[in-house]
Amino acid sequence: MSTITTTQHSSYLDALDRVITETIAPQAIEVDQAGSYPRAALEALGKAGLLGLISAKEVGGLGEAHRAATLVIEAIGKQCASTAMVVCMHYAGTAVIEAYGPREVREAIARGQHVTTLAFSESSSRSHFWAATSAATPLDGKIRLDAKKSWITGAGQADSYVWSSRPVLTEGLSTIWLVPSDAPGLRVVAPFNGLGLRGNASSPVIAEGVIVSEEAMLGEDGKGFDVMMGIVLPYFQLMNAALSVGLMEMATTRSAAHVSATKLEHLGQSIADLPTVRAYLARMRIKTDMARTLLLDTIAALESGREDAMLRVLEIKAAAGESSTEVADLAMRVCGGAAFRKEVGVERNFRDARASTVMAPTTDALYDFIGKAVCGMPLFG
Amino acid sequence: MSTITTTQHSSYLDALDRVITETIAPQAIEVDQAGSYPRAALEALGKAGLLGLISAKEVGGLGEAHRAATLVIEAIGKQCASTAMVVCMHYAGTAVIEAYGPREVREAIARGQHVTTLAFSESSSRSHFWAATSAATPLDGKIRLDAKKSWITGAGQADSYVWSSRPVLTEGLSTIWLVPSDAPGLRVVAPFNGLGLRGNASSPVIAEGVIVSEEAMLGEDGKGFDVMMGIVLPYFQLMNAALSVGLMEMATTRSAAHVSATKLEHLGQSIADLPTVRAYLARMRIKTDMARTLLLDTIAALESGREDAMLRVLEIKAAAGESSTEVADLAMRVCGGAAFRKEVGVERNFRDARASTVMAPTTDALYDFIGKAVCGMPLFG
Amino acid sequence: MSTITTTQHSSYLDALDRVITETIAPQAIEVDQAGSYPRAALEALGKAGLLGLISAKEVGGLGEAHRAATLVIEAIGKQCASTAMVVCMHYAGTAVIEAYGPREVREAIARGQHVTTLAFSESSSRSHFWAATSAATPLDGKIRLDAKKSWITGAGQADSYVWSSRPVLTEGLSTIWLVPSDAPGLRVVAPFNGLGLRGNASSPVIAEGVIVSEEAMLGEDGKGFDVMMGIVLPYFQLMNAALSVGLMEMATTRSAAHVSATKLEHLGQSIADLPTVRAYLARMRIKTDMARTLLLDTIAALESGREDAMLRVLEIKAAAGESSTEVADLAMRVCGGAAFRKEVGVERNFRDARASTVMAPTTDALYDFIGKAVCGMPLFG
Amino acid sequence: MSTITTTQHSSYLDALDRVITETIAPQAIEVDQAGSYPRAALEALGKAGLLGLISAKEVGGLGEAHRAATLVIEAIGKQCASTAMVVCMHYAGTAVIEAYGPREVREAIARGQHVTTLAFSESSSRSHFWAATSAATPLDGKIRLDAKKSWITGAGQADSYVWSSRPVLTEGLSTIWLVPSDAPGLRVVAPFNGLGLRGNASSPVIAEGVIVSEEAMLGEDGKGFDVMMGIVLPYFQLMNAALSVGLMEMATTRSAAHVSATKLEHLGQSIADLPTVRAYLARMRIKTDMARTLLLDTIAALESGREDAMLRVLEIKAAAGESSTEVADLAMRVCGGAAFRKEVGVERNFRDARASTVMAPTTDALYDFIGKAVCGMPLFG
Repeated sequence: MSTITTTQHSSYLDALDRVITETIAPQAIEVDQAGSYPRAALEALGKAGLLGLISAKEVGGLGEAHRAATLVIEAIGKQCASTAMVVCMHYAGTAVIEAYGPREVREAIARGQHVTTLAFSESSSRSHFWAATSAATPLDGKIRLDAKKSWITGAGQADSYVWSSRPVLTEGLSTIWLVPSDAPGLRVVAPFNGLGLRGNASSPVIAEGVIVSEEAMLGEDGKGFDVMMGIVLPYFQLMNAALSVGLMEMATTRSAAHVSATKLEHLGQSIADLPTVRAYLARMRIKTDMARTLLLDTIAALESGREDAMLRVLEIKAAAGESSTEVADLAMRVCGGAAFRKEVGVERNFRDARASTVMAPTTDALYDFIGKAVCGMPLFG
Repeated sequence: MSTITTTQHSSYLDALDRVITETIAPQAIEVDQAGSYPRAALEALGKAGLLGLISAKEVGGLGEAHRAATLVIEAIGKQCASTAMVVCMHYAGTAVIEAYGPREVREAIARGQHVTTLAFSESSSRSHFWAATSAATPLDGKIRLDAKKSWITGAGQADSYVWSSRPVLTEGLSTIWLVPSDAPGLRVVAPFNGLGLRGNASSPVIAEGVIVSEEAMLGEDGKGFDVMMGIVLPYFQLMNAALSVGLMEMATTRSAAHVSATKLEHLGQSIADLPTVRAYLARMRIKTDMARTLLLDTIAALESGREDAMLRVLEIKAAAGESSTEVADLAMRVCGGAAFRKEVGVERNFRDARASTVMAPTTDALYDFIGKAVCGMPLFG
Repeated sequence: MSTITTTQHSSYLDALDRVITETIAPQAIEVDQAGSYPRAALEALGKAGLLGLISAKEVGGLGEAHRAATLVIEAIGKQCASTAMVVCMHYAGTAVIEAYGPREVREAIARGQHVTTLAFSESSSRSHFWAATSAATPLDGKIRLDAKKSWITGAGQADSYVWSSRPVLTEGLSTIWLVPSDAPGLRVVAPFNGLGLRGNASSPVIAEGVIVSEEAMLGEDGKGFDVMMGIVLPYFQLMNAALSVGLMEMATTRSAAHVSATKLEHLGQSIADLPTVRAYLARMRIKTDMARTLLLDTIAALESGREDAMLRVLEIKAAAGESSTEVADLAMRVCGGAAFRKEVGVERNFRDARASTVMAPTTDALYDFIGKAVCGMPLFG
Repeated sequence: MSTITTTQHSSYLDALDRVITETIAPQAIEVDQAGSYPRAALEALGKAGLLGLISAKEVGGLGEAHRAATLVIEAIGKQCASTAMVVCMHYAGTAVIEAYGPREVREAIARGQHVTTLAFSESSSRSHFWAATSAATPLDGKIRLDAKKSWITGAGQADSYVWSSRPVLTEGLSTIWLVPSDAPGLRVVAPFNGLGLRGNASSPVIAEGVIVSEEAMLGEDGKGFDVMMGIVLPYFQLMNAALSVGLMEMATTRSAAHVSATKLEHLGQSIADLPTVRAYLARMRIKTDMARTLLLDTIAALESGREDAMLRVLEIKAAAGESSTEVADLAMRVCGGAAFRKEVGVERNFRDARASTVMAPTTDALYDFIGKAVCGMPLFG
């Protein structure tokens, strides 16, 4: 049940289809079960030019923006949410590097030879990712970074981290850095063993005396908050929501197929003949479609500079994330024991869907921002 | 918090604004409290040309269609849901008359001098409006109608009823008729005293030996089901959903205003300073925006003939109706005792919102249709 | 479907049955529709000795306590929630008067010739009833009271108010007074026109220069908070929950009866033949029974001095109140248009049920207290 | 926060405490992570006399019944839901063997040297466990069993199966048998790899030409349905619900401990200082307590032969199962990323809790039975 075809034919989606069919889909089960980082997928995406999707054409990229990133993540997310999340973080980091990073890294990304990721959240401030507490200290004309990062996607696997710290010299909530993932002093603490998104190599990272040059600063000292809110947030919220929408679509489609195919032999019926089951499927279909139309409207709001664009950006991750846990929950219910034993495929959707609401900004944090916006209160402070 | 401005400037919306400001809004409280039919509003809409909104230009109408009808009902619904429902039923009936009715009635509608309404549901088949059980009997070259209609909006107030009965001579679920509301043998049974939509004059109507000519038939004998599904359903579902969306928007806006303005003097705070209240408001905002984006997408699906258009039409009333009861429920919670005592205005939203889910096709009936569609089963039979 | 018969035969319940059958039930519709105070019911209860239910035997009362008050309110609440709330407030006030009030008032209550009520909530502190902001000023050896009370059940109808103010001379959150309802300077501001509990004569009351003697103080100056929490809260929470449980029981029973009796003639079925409807009824039955068993357990916890008694007291109004709105919502859904048109009787349950969650302490305030208790935090401050 | 201590001191609970402390709790993580059958726990329970908990004293058992079985499963379930489910199935099977089985097996169970389990559900009838479709064929004075059992707890691990088939010679829905798990022709199809209850060795079992004697029949031919409903259902429903209640209690307790201990250093607060988090905890506490009081009331209803006992038995698994998934969902939300990374312990509760609703009779099947009971319809047919 293809829900929407508002997008015109796009060559990047054709290229993506091939990578999904040839690489991502075949490896999806292995990535989830073994919790292995989807390296082959990233290489294939790189060769297809898709790691440079939002890189400027002047550095060799495809020059796309929010809409393309959203549709790509949705499509990957239908087949492998772990891979989708790794790519989501790469695009989120790339957006910052495109604005402030060195040309050689931008070109490497566009060529498909550099994968980056975000490194914002810290143990001490939990999900309040905007509140950096880690240190950036001047040292012999360079900068020394020390931190306990709590949750980095692609930890030890990406080529670079887009990193937050307290400002070096100024006031402000944070400063952003580009840190090579092989810099001495960086240590990935523990392998990831999470409920869902098991292939995204998410792990705490410790930095002890990591030395970077002053040029590693992305944007101005103390202006990290503006980078997070102005550049990262719209991309991340849209892509995270797109992952949720992709998951919902799969959970709904798989559930409908399962109940249509499964027989209650003693009654001469299929499970789809039960009205209560059909009602659950209808709720799933509606929730999925509501989330997707809000997502597309959020893209439109951003693209046209609508005055409610920022409110929509805040809304979309909460809306899609909550909807996806509801839909996945119904999928588990509708598919019953078969789902529980992992036969239908919705069990993975169920586990992966929870990740969206756990990742910062969490649903509850977003509700607070949205509530403040609705009441005309300042979002921070 | 104006949510969307995707619509271009439309002259009918300007005309509507004036009618709302001058007539509908000032009478809204009276219509609800006294349960009085909004006759002045209908006259003003007629004079402004808006009763002919979807009438063809060739009979003097504005020649608009689904989008315009939806936006008009949403706008009226924000101020007076009872008036909006009366107009909704007029447009739903007009769509049938435009297709099959006599030119003089079409012209009267376009001139603003004829209000019509639907008369489908019957006591014996409850909310299954598509199953007519009432009689249409040949009698001396004419047709005799006998029925117990259970729930007609504008009963005894509209100029005509778009009426369903069993077929006269053929197979089929029903046949549709245009019946003047002053035809001998028609009797409005009881005044309406409902929880919400108190001004829509909804009442049972008894027909005993009502005589109409054969020309009163709208469409072919036995083809009523096709008329209901092909013409009425898309209009009604969209407009009913638009009413729900308008209600939600008001409930959300009023709640935000109330909690921002109301002080807890002993704490030196407003209610909006409570994080739990902000979280409720955020949920209201998100649910409202999801319903509205699905509504706009449904219009787009219909206009472009998208293959999922019929599925969207089935979804939208269930989606918007359920969302509006959830949002109105949160509004009552957020506004507390003040809402309960009717001070904030959301108490009327709360009562009116329930009507959407009660009106056929009910949410549960729609869930069943949608579930069948999702599972590839036939919708009827 | 009688749910529980754990209670032994109690003579007060027999007496109550007669009053309900002869007076309360016959007047229930009038009390709701006209919003009239249930004076006849109070007189009948007085004559039957039931206004003195929790008055000590030594002043002529029945000497009962929490369990009896709970069961009486539940039974009345099934037939007329407005009457039940008036009696609930009388018992809550009586508990304070029994502890600290003058013997003649205690005897008058026991004789059935004095009805009292609570007057705690104030405009300035909204639902935070424990934060009195109104004045009690020494004046010529007497006390002058000035206040804007926001929501008094039985305003202008009860014989006395159990009244809160700021302390006269000491620290503390409040002081409690017994104020005759005919004291000069008291003014009932407006008639009540609420969504539900329409017969409880709930209204704002203004006090300007009301003079009471020092003996009118109930308990010590500044110790009002202890009276509210130690005496009033357990009674009020239990009785308010009992009202919710009674409402739920009626909504469930009436809904089951309606769907069993109502036919879909074209299908040769009753509405109860629809599996989705049965599932809603099952949810209603379960929610009702869960609330009632928690209520009975809360009484047992109080009676035996269990260490979790106070936690249960906090829980029970939130649990029963939320459950009753959910059950009443399902009742409206299951009974559809018939409910909406007030034919089934559940529409009144639906309106009355909302009152429980609106009355202080609100569900959200209770959630905060319970959350603090669960986390080992102090409840206040 | 120990919720209830209505039970008197029971020696079996003391013995259980030791087994839990010494064996079950230390192995809980291993059982879940490796998906290993809790053999050591069963041996320890056997030595402590607890496998014979509901065996009659005349065969050496403890002579307890529903209440004891419920409390034992709740206590085990708090530490290891997989172990609890294995023991639950053992007691459910034991109840049938006690009624109809051979003395030597009853004595072996009482001595702790025989573990049994249920083998009802079949591939062809899915969760409708009462509809046996497998064959029992007379063969040379013996009985040949052939079946595709879809979901047997302790498959290949228990010593015997309490097995359902179609009747041999009579009408009726089923006949019950006692089948040794090492009987030739029995084959465990696949290892279990489920989302939760990972240590309960749940697996499909194929029977091809399994030969049992006529004495293996438990009860009369064709009377299996009566055994299932009269003996098995009350035990299973109570114990399954007890497992859900134990899970909820742990999820609530662990969540409260986590948010109280976890700091937001940049704010100088703990997570418990957030009002929205406290509100979630309050909901968890209330849902847990409502489910537990309904459970205790169901035991009381059974013990006293109350007329609503069967309705309560139907309700309790649905009530506790649904509540436990809601509570576990809130626990995941409240504990955020820490829960997702399995640090808090609630992630296992979240996975295990889903199993209750998946196991037959499912929540939706129970809703249908309850709905029929509420409407006075026959439960089957």
